[in-house]
Amino acid sequence: MAEAANGGARGRGDGVPCPTNPMVTPLLTDLYQFTMAYAYWKAGKHLDRAVFDLYFRKNPFGGEFTIFGGLEECIRFIANFKFAEDEIKFLRSVMPSCEDGFFEYLSSIDCSDVEVYAIPEGYVVFPKVPLMRIEGPVAVIQLLETPFLSLVNYASLVTTNAARHRLVAGKSKNLLEFGLRRAQGPDGGISASRYSYMGGFDATSNVAAGRLFGIPIRGTHSHAFVSSFMGLDEITDEALTSSDGSNKCEDFVSVVQNWLIRIQDSSSLRGTFGETSQSELAAFTSYALAFPNAFLALVDTYDAVGIRLDSGDLAYLSVETRKFFHAIEKEFGVVGFGKMTITASNDLNEETIDALNKQGHEVDAFGIGTYLVTCYAQAALGCVFKLVEINKQPRIKLSEDVTKVSIPCKKRCYRLYGKEGYPLVDIMTGEDEPGPKIGERLLCRHPFNESKRAYVVPQHVEELLKCYWPGTSSNSREELPSIHEIRTRCIHHLDRMRPDHMRRLNPTPYKVSVSAKLYDFIHFLWLNEAPVGELQ
Amino acid sequence: MAEAANGGARGRGDGVPCPTNPMVTPLLTDLYQFTMAYAYWKAGKHLDRAVFDLYFRKNPFGGEFTIFGGLEECIRFIANFKFAEDEIKFLRSVMPSCEDGFFEYLSSIDCSDVEVYAIPEGYVVFPKVPLMRIEGPVAVIQLLETPFLSLVNYASLVTTNAARHRLVAGKSKNLLEFGLRRAQGPDGGISASRYSYMGGFDATSNVAAGRLFGIPIRGTHSHAFVSSFMGLDEITDEALTSSDGSNKCEDFVSVVQNWLIRIQDSSSLRGTFGETSQSELAAFTSYALAFPNAFLALVDTYDAVGIRLDSGDLAYLSVETRKFFHAIEKEFGVVGFGKMTITASNDLNEETIDALNKQGHEVDAFGIGTYLVTCYAQAALGCVFKLVEINKQPRIKLSEDVTKVSIPCKKRCYRLYGKEGYPLVDIMTGEDEPGPKIGERLLCRHPFNESKRAYVVPQHVEELLKCYWPGTSSNSREELPSIHEIRTRCIHHLDRMRPDHMRRLNPTPYKVSVSAKLYDFIHFLWLNEAPVGELQ
Repeated sequence: MAEAANGGARGRGDGVPCPTNPMVTPLLTDLYQFTMAYAYWKAGKHLDRAVFDLYFRKNPFGGEFTIFGGLEECIRFIANFKFAEDEIKFLRSVMPSCEDGFFEYLSSIDCSDVEVYAIPEGYVVFPKVPLMRIEGPVAVIQLLETPFLSLVNYASLVTTNAARHRLVAGKSKNLLEFGLRRAQGPDGGISASRYSYMGGFDATSNVAAGRLFGIPIRGTHSHAFVSSFMGLDEITDEALTSSDGSNKCEDFVSVVQNWLIRIQDSSSLRGTFGETSQSELAAFTSYALAFPNAFLALVDTYDAVGIRLDSGDLAYLSVETRKFFHAIEKEFGVVGFGKMTITASNDLNEETIDALNKQGHEVDAFGIGTYLVTCYAQAALGCVFKLVEINKQPRIKLSEDVTKVSIPCKKRCYRLYGKEGYPLVDIMTGEDEPGPKIGERLLCRHPFNESKRAYVVPQHVEELLKCYWPGTSSNSREELPSIHEIRTRCIHHLDRMRPDHMRRLNPTPYKVSVSAKLYDFIHFLWLNEAPVGELQ
Repeated sequence: MAEAANGGARGRGDGVPCPTNPMVTPLLTDLYQFTMAYAYWKAGKHLDRAVFDLYFRKNPFGGEFTIFGGLEECIRFIANFKFAEDEIKFLRSVMPSCEDGFFEYLSSIDCSDVEVYAIPEGYVVFPKVPLMRIEGPVAVIQLLETPFLSLVNYASLVTTNAARHRLVAGKSKNLLEFGLRRAQGPDGGISASRYSYMGGFDATSNVAAGRLFGIPIRGTHSHAFVSSFMGLDEITDEALTSSDGSNKCEDFVSVVQNWLIRIQDSSSLRGTFGETSQSELAAFTSYALAFPNAFLALVDTYDAVGIRLDSGDLAYLSVETRKFFHAIEKEFGVVGFGKMTITASNDLNEETIDALNKQGHEVDAFGIGTYLVTCYAQAALGCVFKLVEINKQPRIKLSEDVTKVSIPCKKRCYRLYGKEGYPLVDIMTGEDEPGPKIGERLLCRHPFNESKRAYVVPQHVEELLKCYWPGTSSNSREELPSIHEIRTRCIHHLDRMRPDHMRRLNPTPYKVSVSAKLYDFIHFLWLNEAPVGELQ
C-alpha cells in the first residue's frame, strides 16, 4: 500500500476533496476506537463485515423534525481516509504494548471497501430512521464512528435550528447569521454559517465562511464605529459622487445638516425627533460617504441613543420607525423612504421572533447570533452509531429504556406519501424485503409498541438511503450537490411537510415504522437475547 | 495537517507559531469590520490610536467565577496576522465599490504596532475587568475583534465548565473528557479537550487533541465491541503472555471459564451474580487478551447487561460493585481486587456528580462528554470588545441597562490580597494613577453604585494586565507557558480563592471595583454624554 501523500488527498480521494477543516484527520477520534481495533485484530475479527446505523433518538428543540446536515463532510473524510506515517508513529507511542503487525495493518487501511448509504443532506429526517448506513470491516467502521458523529451532530442541530428560525420568521423576512464571535470555537462559527444558510438563512456576517462556501455576506458597522467619532468636524473629505459618476455633491456634510434642520423644524414630525448625538451624526455621515449605495444603520441608531431593544420594545420601535419613515416620505416627497429596510439584532431567537409576530412589528431583517449558532436552547443532538449486523448476523442493543433499544438488521428505508402530497410515514424493512408499492396497501408497525400500527396505501414511494460511497460494489455514487442546491432542497422538503408536524406548539409526531416482517424479527431477537430476571 | 499549517508563518511571527486551527485567518471575522475599516480609511481616521477592552459582564453557570482561556491563540493570531493575496482579491470582490488604495492599505497591515496586555491564561477572572487590553490603529484593532472573541469566548467558557466539574468531583477523582462526538464541530471537540484539561481534567479520549497538546489519552471499548462477539468459541488465540514475557498462560479462555464457575459456585457471592452474557464474556476475554495490563471494562459491563446508569442507580451500583470486588478479594485472596477502579460515564454533569456525592458512591473516575464540551447548561459566554479610548480621548458606551455601560479609559488592573492570603478585590485605575501599595489603605468603589465602597489594606498586590505583545514599545513580552503550566496555575488559583466565592449554591460575588479617581471620571463622562430626556 502506498504511503499517504503529503498534504492534499490522503487516500484514494476519487475526486472528492479533503474535509473542509484540515484538522479533521483519522486521528480525530476516540482512543477506544484504536484499542478496539487492536482487540479485533488480535482476535482475528478485524475484517468481519459489519453494518452500523447512524441515527438520533429524539428531535431537538421540542420539535418533531430535524434536518440532516454534515453528509458531504463525512464523504470527504472517507474518500481521503489514510493514516500518515507520523500519525502511525504517534499511535505507536500511545499504545506501546501493541504488536507491530497491527500498525502495519493500520497503515494499509483506506475506505475502498466501505459502503455508505445515506439520506440526502438537507432532507427532513426523523428519530430512529438511519441517516447513514455504513458497512465494511468492523475495525475500519469503528474508526469512522467518532468523526462521523462529530461531523453530523452539530451540523444537523444547527441546520435544524436555522430552519426553525426561518419557519417562525416567515418567508418574506431576511435572515442574517451574525454568530461568529459567540460560536463554540472558530470552526463552530464557520460550520454555523454554512449550516444556517443550508437551513434557510439568507446571509452571514462571517467573511471566511462566505468565501469557503459561497454564502452571501452582510454587515454594516458597530457601536465602536459610532463612538470613535466626536463630531462632523472630523469629516475631511465631504464630497459624495454617485456610483455611476454622473453626479457629484461637493459638500455632503452641509446637505446632512440642512436636512437635519428641515426635519427638526417640520411640524408634522415634531415630537418624534429627539436630541441629535454629534458622534452618531458624524459616524453615519462618514459611513454614508464610504458606502453611498449600501447605507444601513437603522438599528444601531436606536442602540446608540440608548433605547434597549428587547422583544417588546422592538415591536414598538419598529412600528414607530416605519411611521417616521412614511412621514418623511410624505412630508418631503422622498419616494421609497417609507419602505426602507429595518434590521434588528439583539439577542434574538425563535421565542422573541414569535413574540414579535404576535405583537405586530415592521422589521424586515433579523440578525441572529448566539442563540442560533450555539443552539442555546439545546446545545447537542444525540446522534449515535450502532452495530446492527455482523457477518450477516443481526445484532440488537437492549436497554431497560425502550427508546434506547436499537433496530437490528441491515435495512432499507422508505418515505411514503399520501394523496395530498404530504409524507405520511417512514418505514424500515429488512434489506431483502420487497419495497412498498404505489397503490398497494401496506401494514406499518411501530417498532416497539405492539398496538400502534396502521395500513397505508402510498401514492408515492421514495427510497431514503442512497449510495454515496459504493465501496467495491458496482453501484453508482450519488453526486454531492452544491450548498445552494441543498438549501433549495431543504426549503422544498420543509414546505412539503404537513403543517401540524412543523408548528411550534404541540406539533404532531411524524410516524416512523417498520414492516410487519421486521417487527416480528425484532421481537424474536429481543426475547432471545434479553436475560430473564430473577425476583429475589 | 495542523503541523504543516503551524510551519507556514503569515506575518512576522516573532517565533510565535500560527493559530492551532489553520482556518483561523484574518478573514475569519465579521464583514462589518472591513466596511468600518473602509469608512475609517475614507475618513482618514484609520490610524487613530484606539484602546479596546475585551471583557465579559456575567459569570457563567450561575457561578461567581470564570477561568480565562484562549490567550495563546490570540497571540498566535496577531503574531502571524497578514492578508494573503488571494484574500485581498476575495475582499475586493465582496466590496466592489471600495477604492484601490484601501486594499493596498489592507495588504500592508500587520500587528507590529499593536499592543496587547492581558491577564495570564488560566487565571480566575471576574466580570467587567478587562481580560485583554488591545491598543493600536483603530482599523486594525477592529479587524481583531471577532477572531479574538471567537478564540476567547468558548475557550473561557469550557475551561470554567471543566473547573466547576473538578470542584464538585473533588481532587482525588479522575476526570476524563469524552465529548468529541457531541461537540459543536470538530474544532469544538479539539478545543474542548484542550481547555477541559486546562481547567483541571486529567485526560481526554480525543487522540488528535492528545497529540496536538500533549494531553494524556484514555479509552477502553464501546457497546458495539461487546455485541460484535457471540461467544467464547470466536476466540482463536487463547494464549496470554505477561508483559515482561516471564509468564505464559496457554489457555486463558479456560482460566476465565474456571473462574466464572468458582464465582458462581461461591456461597458468599450467591445472589450478587446473575446470568452471564456469552457475548460480553467473549468480548471482555478478548479485550483482556489484547490489553493484559490495561483492562478496564467496568461500567460498560453494567451498560451491556442493560442496567440504566442514571445518577441514583449509579450511586447504588458503584457501592454494590465495590462490595462485590471486596468479596472477591476476601473469598479468593486476590490482593488489590477490592480497590479496582470504577469508572462511570452516562450523561454526567455537575448536578449528577453533586447528587452522587450526596448519596455516597464508590466511583473513582468520571467520563464526561456532552454536558462538558457543549457547555449545555449555558452554551455561550458573552465576552464583548469595547472602545474605551481613542486618540487619548476616553470613550464610554451608555445603555439604559447599567450592566451594559462600559468602563472608559485605558486602565490598569490589580488584584488585592488580604491577610489570609485570599484575593479580596480587583481594582481598575486610570493608566497614569499610582498603583495600590502593600499596607496602604485604599478606597475601592463599585463602578456604578455610589453607595458600594470599601477601604482595603492590601497585604499583596498583583498587577493583572501583563504585556503579551509589546508593539513598538520596548516592554518585554511575557512567555507563553505550556498547557501543563497553565493547568497547574489554574488549579493553584482556584485553590487560593475564598471558598464562599466558589461554592455551587449561592456563592458570594467577588468584588470588582474602580479607584475613587476613575469613579469620579466615569460619572463625569456619563453625565456629560447622556442625553437629557424629555417627558411628553
